[in-house]
Order: sequence, then C-alpha cells, then structure tokens
Amino acid sequence: MADNIVIIGAVAVGPKSGCRYKRLRQDGNVTLIDQDDIISYGGCGIPYYVSGDVSDEAELRSTSFHMVRDEKFFKDDKGVTALTGTRALKIDRKNKTVQVQDKTGTQRDIPYDKLVIGVGTKPRDLNIPGTSLKNVYRVGNMHDAIKIKELVTAGSVEKAVVIGAGFIGLEMAEALADMWQIETTVVEFCDQIMPGFVSKNLSLLAQRRMEEEGVRFYLEESVEAIEGKDGAERVKTNKRTLDADLVIMAVGIAPNTELASDAGLEMAQGGFIKVNEKMQTSDPDIYAGGDCVVIKNLVSGKPGFFPLGSMANRQGRVIGTNMAGGNAEFKGAVGSFVVKTFDTALAGAGLSVTTAQRAGFDAVGIQVAQFDRAHFYPEKEIIYLELVVDLKTRRVLGIQGYGGENSGMFTRVNAVAAILQYQPTVDAVSNLELAYSPPFASAMDVINALGNAADNFLDGRYKPMTQDEFEACWKDRDKNACMYLDCRAYADAKIFEEKYPEIWKSIPHNELAGRMDEVPKDKKLILICNTGVRSYEAQINLAAQGITDTLSVGAGMASLKQYGLDFETDE
Amino acid sequence: MADNIVIIGAVAVGPKSGCRYKRLRQDGNVTLIDQDDIISYGGCGIPYYVSGDVSDEAELRSTSFHMVRDEKFFKDDKGVTALTGTRALKIDRKNKTVQVQDKTGTQRDIPYDKLVIGVGTKPRDLNIPGTSLKNVYRVGNMHDAIKIKELVTAGSVEKAVVIGAGFIGLEMAEALADMWQIETTVVEFCDQIMPGFVSKNLSLLAQRRMEEEGVRFYLEESVEAIEGKDGAERVKTNKRTLDADLVIMAVGIAPNTELASDAGLEMAQGGFIKVNEKMQTSDPDIYAGGDCVVIKNLVSGKPGFFPLGSMANRQGRVIGTNMAGGNAEFKGAVGSFVVKTFDTALAGAGLSVTTAQRAGFDAVGIQVAQFDRAHFYPEKEIIYLELVVDLKTRRVLGIQGYGGENSGMFTRVNAVAAILQYQPTVDAVSNLELAYSPPFASAMDVINALGNAADNFLDGRYKPMTQDEFEACWKDRDKNACMYLDCRAYADAKIFEEKYPEIWKSIPHNELAGRMDEVPKDKKLILICNTGVRSYEAQINLAAQGITDTLSVGAGMASLKQYGLDFETDE
Repeated sequence: MADNIVIIGAVAVGPKSGCRYKRLRQDGNVTLIDQDDIISYGGCGIPYYVSGDVSDEAELRSTSFHMVRDEKFFKDDKGVTALTGTRALKIDRKNKTVQVQDKTGTQRDIPYDKLVIGVGTKPRDLNIPGTSLKNVYRVGNMHDAIKIKELVTAGSVEKAVVIGAGFIGLEMAEALADMWQIETTVVEFCDQIMPGFVSKNLSLLAQRRMEEEGVRFYLEESVEAIEGKDGAERVKTNKRTLDADLVIMAVGIAPNTELASDAGLEMAQGGFIKVNEKMQTSDPDIYAGGDCVVIKNLVSGKPGFFPLGSMANRQGRVIGTNMAGGNAEFKGAVGSFVVKTFDTALAGAGLSVTTAQRAGFDAVGIQVAQFDRAHFYPEKEIIYLELVVDLKTRRVLGIQGYGGENSGMFTRVNAVAAILQYQPTVDAVSNLELAYSPPFASAMDVINALGNAADNFLDGRYKPMTQDEFEACWKDRDKNACMYLDCRAYADAKIFEEKYPEIWKSIPHNELAGRMDEVPKDKKLILICNTGVRSYEAQINLAAQGITDTLSVGAGMASLKQYGLDFETDE
Repeated sequence: MADNIVIIGAVAVGPKSGCRYKRLRQDGNVTLIDQDDIISYGGCGIPYYVSGDVSDEAELRSTSFHMVRDEKFFKDDKGVTALTGTRALKIDRKNKTVQVQDKTGTQRDIPYDKLVIGVGTKPRDLNIPGTSLKNVYRVGNMHDAIKIKELVTAGSVEKAVVIGAGFIGLEMAEALADMWQIETTVVEFCDQIMPGFVSKNLSLLAQRRMEEEGVRFYLEESVEAIEGKDGAERVKTNKRTLDADLVIMAVGIAPNTELASDAGLEMAQGGFIKVNEKMQTSDPDIYAGGDCVVIKNLVSGKPGFFPLGSMANRQGRVIGTNMAGGNAEFKGAVGSFVVKTFDTALAGAGLSVTTAQRAGFDAVGIQVAQFDRAHFYPEKEIIYLELVVDLKTRRVLGIQGYGGENSGMFTRVNAVAAILQYQPTVDAVSNLELAYSPPFASAMDVINALGNAADNFLDGRYKPMTQDEFEACWKDRDKNACMYLDCRAYADAKIFEEKYPEIWKSIPHNELAGRMDEVPKDKKLILICNTGVRSYEAQINLAAQGITDTLSVGAGMASLKQYGLDFETDE
C-alpha cells in the first residue's frame, strides 16, 4: 500500500530523503514543501558563487549533468511533487496532517503517513542598532547570495565589513577580497579566527595568509552599531569605526524549529529537534534531519550540532530508507570540517583543545610541522597538524591542520577523522597506515610523526613550546632568564647569535655531544631548529646530562615565521 | 645497565629501531652493520632519482635538513655506531654474538643483548638466458640506481624494456619515458598492470594514460630470453622480439633471510621471518622488521608481505621501544599502496577482488565515477573508486582508486584504509565523514556514493555492468540480443543512436516515465549515462514496471572513454 510522505523543507535533507524513499518505493507519494521558490541548492557553495568561481546561481541548484533541480525536475526525474512558495503553518500530529498556505494565500491540509522536517536554520542577528539598514546582509539563502553578488558585480562595493570569523565569515571575506578586490575587514568577538574549531596557533597561520591577501582582522572587538542614513555606511566596534558600503553578518545560525516545538516534539537545548539514531523525532512517524537537529557527537558522546550539507544528505538517505521500511542508522558525527582560506585551508575533526576541555577532558594539543611528501621529492610543502589528546587515557580526541589547499593536510585530517569514532589512542595515529610512495607521503609520514610526538609528550620525554608561548617568552626576553639554543647549522643560526648574543646560542645538534660544556646550566633553555626534529633530539641528549629545564619549539622556526614572528627584521 | 644493541641491515628498519632505542636509552650502545657503503637511503625514491625529479643520489640519503646519513651523521647526531662495508656472516644465538667480516676481510664476533634483523630483500631474476648481460639491471639498491642514471644521463639509451608491470616496473617505465624520452616497453606476464592490486578495469585506466605518454605495454607475454653480444640488444618474448639497449628486471623480490634461517629462527612461507606483534622473532632477544618479515594482514587475518619503507620505519620504532623495555605493538597492516602513473595514480588498501577471492571471501567489486569536489566548483575532476565487499557479510574488504595525482582520490582511499582494520560494513562507507566544503568534497561525496552503490548492489536494487563486461558485450553486439538505452540528454545520445539505430536507443531519464512504452521489452537492456547516476535511476524505474533484465554501466560513459573504448570513431 502506497504511503503518503510529506517533507517540510526542500534544500538538502528534504529532497534527499524524498528521492531515496521514492527509489525504494516507486509506488509511494512524496510531497516536498518549501516556502521558497528556489529549492534544492548547495548553500555551502554560496561564497563561491559570490566570488565568481561559480558564475551562475543556477549551477548551485543543478545536477552534475546540468539539470536545474526545480519542480519539473523533481516531477520528471524523481517522481516527487515539489510545492514551492508553500509555507507549512502547522503540524497536526493527531490527524496526521500538515496545514500549508500557498503563494495565493490559500490554506489546506495535506495528510501524511510519514513526515520529514528539514527546515534548516536562519542567520542570527546581533542585538545592535542598524542591522536592518540596506546593504547589511546575512548569508542565509540564495536570495541573499544573489543580492550580494549583484552589488559586487555592479562595482558598488569598495569597503566591506564582515562580522564574525567563523566558516561563513572567512569564506565571504575571501570571496569579496579575492575576486572583487574589495577592501575587506573581519571583526570577531573572540581572540582568534575559527574560535572553538582550531587552536589559536593554527588559526594564526591562516589569518596571516589572509592578511597577506589584504583581509584585515580586528579580533576581541564587539560590534556596537551599524550606522548610515539609508544603507550602511559605518560599523562601530568598541574600539574603532570602520567605513563600509557592505556589511555581512556571519555571527551564527539558529534553528527554524517553531513548527516542531509547536507540534510538541521533544526539543534539545538551543531550539534544536531531538532525534534518535533512526533520525526519528519523539513522534516515530515524524523524522527530522539537517541543520535543525542535534545528533550525537561521537567523540564527546554529547549532543552535537553539525550544520553541513554533507551531513544533511547522508541523514536524508537514512530517513528515506527508514520511511520505506528499512533499518538504517545515523549514529552521529565526529565533526569533520574544512575551510578554504585563499590558497590554504584549515581543517579538522573531533574536538579542539578548547571544546575538549569544555567537554570535561584533560586535553592538550601537540603540534607537528613536516613536509607532506618525501622531503627529497621536488613537489612538497610543510603542513601543520595538531593532535588533541586526553592526558589520562592517551585517547585521541581530535585533529586539526593547516596547509596549502591542495597539500596533503586534508588527507591526513580525513584519515584520522575516519577512525575517531573507534576511540583510538595515540598509538593508532603512530601506526596509521597511509598509502606510501614518495610523491604522496613520507616513509615516516607527518601523521605518524604527529602520533609519535604525542606519545613522546605523554611519556614526559618531549616538552614542547607552542608559538604563542614562544611569542610571550620572546616578548619578555629582557626580563626572563631564558636562553635560546639554536640546533640548526651555524649558517642558519649565525644571524640570530650575532643579533642577540646575550640570549641566543648556536650549537648545531650534530656538535652538541662534544660541546656539552658550553650549554648554559643556570637558565631555562628554549631549543629551536627548523621543524622541531633536531630540537627534540637535543632535548633528549640534554636530559641524559641532567639538563631538564628545556622546552623544544614544537613546530620550529618554520611555524614561527608562518605565525608572523619575524626576528630578522625585528628591531 | 647499558645494553648492547646490534642491528644487521642499515637501510630503513635498522636505523629507525637503533635511533629510537637510543633516544629512550641514551646509555645504550647501538651498532648498525651493513655490507653496503651506502646506508639509510629512501629506496622507494629510486625511480624519482632516475627520472631526474631527485637530482642527486645524496638527497635520497639526507635528512630533511640536508645532512647525509652516513657513519659520521649516525655517530654525531644519533650516538649510533654504523659499520659499513661489514657483512654479517653468522648469528650465534647461544653465545649471543654476530660474526662479521669487514672490508679488509677481517672477521670478528660482536656480542649483543638484543639483535635486530632488517636485511630487506633482493630482486628476483627470471630463469632465462641473458639476465647477466650488461645493461640488464634490477632496482635493488642505490648502486643499481646510480648505474641506470649514468646510462640514461649519458644519452646512451634509446629503447628500454621493463619486465614486470608492478610498482617498480611502472615507476621505472615512467622515469625512463617521461624525462628521458626513452622508447619504453613494459612486458607483463599477467593480463593487466598491477596484477593482484587493482581490478583489470581500474588498471586499464592507468595503462591508457601511460600509453598516451608513449609507454607501450605487452600483457600476457612471457620473456624467454635477453639477447646480445656483450650488452643486452633484444628481449625475446613468446610473441615478439623487442630491441632494447636497457633492460629493467622488475619481476619481484625475495627476502635476504639465509642468515635468519641458518640461525634456526622460525620462518614463514617464501623465506620470510616470522615475527609476533612485538616484532620479535621466535627468539625473544632477536627482532626483525621491514621487507624480510611477514606480518598479519588485518583484513584477511593471514600473513602478509608489505615491502614499503613506511612499514619498515613504523616497525623500527616499535622495535626500538620494545628493546628499551617498552611495550609497543605492531598489529599488522591493511596494505595501503599508491603508485604514480605520470600525472595520475592508482591507489588502494585492503584486498582487491582477486586477492579477496583467493583468501576465501565471496568478494565483488563495485565501481563509482564521480567528481572529487562539488560538481559546481570549477576545479574538480572525475575519480574512479572501487569498493571490494563480501557478499555474505556486507563487510568492506578493500578499496582501490584511479585519478589525477593531485585529485581527491588519494584522500578517499586513505580514509577507508584507516577504518579497514575495524572490519567495517558498507554502511560505514555510506556514512564516512569526510570534511566537507565545495572546494574539497561533495555534499554527497564520491566515497559515500560508493558505499551507497555497494549497499544498493547488495540489496539487489543495483545491477551494474563493468567496463570489461561492456567491452565483451559490445564486441558481440551483432550476435547478442542487447539494447543500449542511453539515459543522457538527447544531444549526447544522438550520434550513437544515428550510428547504431538497431541497438542504441535514446530515452533521456527525465522522459522515461512518459515514454515507457518505447522501451524494448524482449531484450536485455544495457542502461548508460555519463557517470552511472541516471542509468541507475532508470534501472529502478524500469524494475517498477516489471522490466528487470537490465544492467547499468556502473561508472558510465566517462569510464568507458577513459578505459579506451571509443565508439564515436569506431568503425
């Protein structure tokens, strides 16, 4: 007997669940409802549409074989009825109907056997004056995207202010600054970009790269008002006033779940819908998925919010299968992410040190910098990885990385992401089996070196110093009693030794055993080399001689330069 | 109390185990013994040295900070004594000594507390006349590499024959043909390149790419003799005679384990040394690792041989830790691999269909072709993945792929490689959580599509046809009773329909529901579109109408073209 499937929301999880159901049950009736005229689009692609990488908005709503996913497409290709411009007003669970209102204002009840809620989110607004001025945009749907693109294409934007340095903020900043050469400033309330997702150290590597491309950042600033007569002209923060003829608000999103909560479905904190592993709400005939639900964070075990089109699509398939009588499960997510920052990227999975500590773990982050391919292979680049581990259990809680957009960083992060749900310890990363050949990886690959560094740290053998710790220490170099022991070849160390003779000492690692008597014993030693390999080795050699008050600059001089510390031109 | 550690073999596992031990036990004595003068080199880099990508052989034996790893380096930087040109003659387990002979012929006994055997392999030879002629080389060590490079650099090689189309054969063929423009022919006994590692279908994609670059392949041919007066001039196979002024023998490797077997250590089939998860041989004071041992294949559970520098390095660390009193384990490997074929690559992990069937699984391979990034993102390419699954248990046994060398193929293979040891089912691949953003992945990523295709296949919903099956069917198109139903837009299908009106029929998928009466019902239908998405959908629509004698060309027209089937210019 044919079921009536009604789906509210036709962007990602909705169409996917409907089409999957229909493939399993060709005799079923599927009705997709969306208040918008534009449906089934790749919202994550909006920044690339604005940047011009994607030339036409229709491309974001087309299949790989160039058919626009509109009502006709759903009818002809999928056998699914799509009702656009149709708003769901109310869910009547008792009578199993959805009350809808079409473009003309006509209301009617659509009966369902199974219902799917995939209504997504809406952008949050700051509670400040001026958010409704013209030229203040959110990036919530295709209409926003089209308006922003019209503005920049017309050449009427010279200065843009982006509020928020999360995913959408950074992607929009790049879109504006890169192709359109708009003077772009990002204002962020926290003290780093991508707060919560990566460590401040990693975030700064990406921030510096964006700054090189002309994007300005003001961190730890709160926006107090957007000012202007008709349209936005200025953004006032607690520290300065920025001229702006375009303001992008990217300060987070909130779920569109009044409908669900009005229907009496069980809700989670923050207004999200609760679902089980079958993606059922507290009403077994009502499923929900995508950005409006919380699912289990497979690392912390706690409810997690993962607003990604990929998540919505995979959940949609599970919903479709289950509505057709199948038995599919969506057990949760580890929170993999990637954000392009010009020709580089930040990526990660699992918990960052911050989110891990917040979840109650005794977490620490261990960094490694190393080439992504065999160091003798001509095409290669240094990538930065950080492993988040629990001190008590040696469990790996997360991984984050920074590197070139086409570097091997993405592969390493994804390989660790894949095993996170199996609760690996650092040994699993030390032995992670990446396919090896010199044009693709190293014989002792950076991912295994990362596991080894964490292992050495947990065993108390490796005592690293991070870039921010180095920066603080270096700032106080006149006050504190640190010596910098440079383990590189003399040619590399010379300029520093000559410039800072009081505190900088060159002893190349291969000469250390024979020059042990030259090592200052009354001061804390900061050991440094290019990527942290020789300074770690020196740390061990020194420890064997009883010199244990040492720190090894984890990701070495390479990372300090990328981080923005420039000693050579320093006054 | 300081231990004496003696290590036989100083290429990969040996130096690593010694240096790791030394870092944990600075008071220990470590002696590395090698019969060669060149030690601690990246043997996997040899093809890239021959090609010129790596200009100097010293780079293959240098650290990332450009120090050559010779005796002096090991002494000064690592505190390890390296005895080069020193041959281990005998292991006396009772007295715990190794009898060695140095360059001058002097013999002596070196006492050990712990011994490591890391003696690697030697290249196999075919049992045919002419293998000892000049200009017949194996790729066994740096000396071979240096001689081959001297020859090609001198411009004295015009025609090369490579015997064997495995890793080394293909890499050497590329090295010779690419940079040096040498007319290069590969002769392989099996009916495909990379036999056992990838399906014939995937292998052909890479083979065609190499052929485009001028490499010639003769498959299913056996070499019967190498002929010439002084140096090699011709290679005679069972089917032809090939001129050659350079012959590379790449027909496999055999372990160098007479020493171990003479010492009475327990050996595995093929002359490999047996080790436990601590990398101990049957004598707990003797460890072994690298190419001369077998370890557990974590997918099949059977002994596996994984001759890779990456494996050796990771095993070396485990050995070093355990010799120092630690408790490290090397549980086995899933056999990840990658081989560059000009600007493309073949990669994989776990079992191929062939090796899975050989291991007793009821295995089948499911292929998918899809863009590696969002299809609307400008930089993207189609990659080919094949998932090997067990029909009975739905377990994933392996994954193989083909794609551009910098494509997302490598990432997908590595992500699945990472979970193979956890015995995933296809559902784990359907839900594999790759970090998503349009410049890096698709919302329904190719890896998830692969899991879904396998799921649909196992459920009997998806009935695919592979490229070789298509080729066979197409060859017999006059004899058999197949119809080819083209599900693409008419513009794409037109040329075929006009050329093959009897057997080729265009019904774009979006018109199928309305044109069901045009579908031939008395013939087997071969459904085809560009990448397999629409043809699968058509298969389901047809099944609902009772038309079930259909096959969907799995990876679509894209893969057939890449495979080398060219209908348009076909007679």
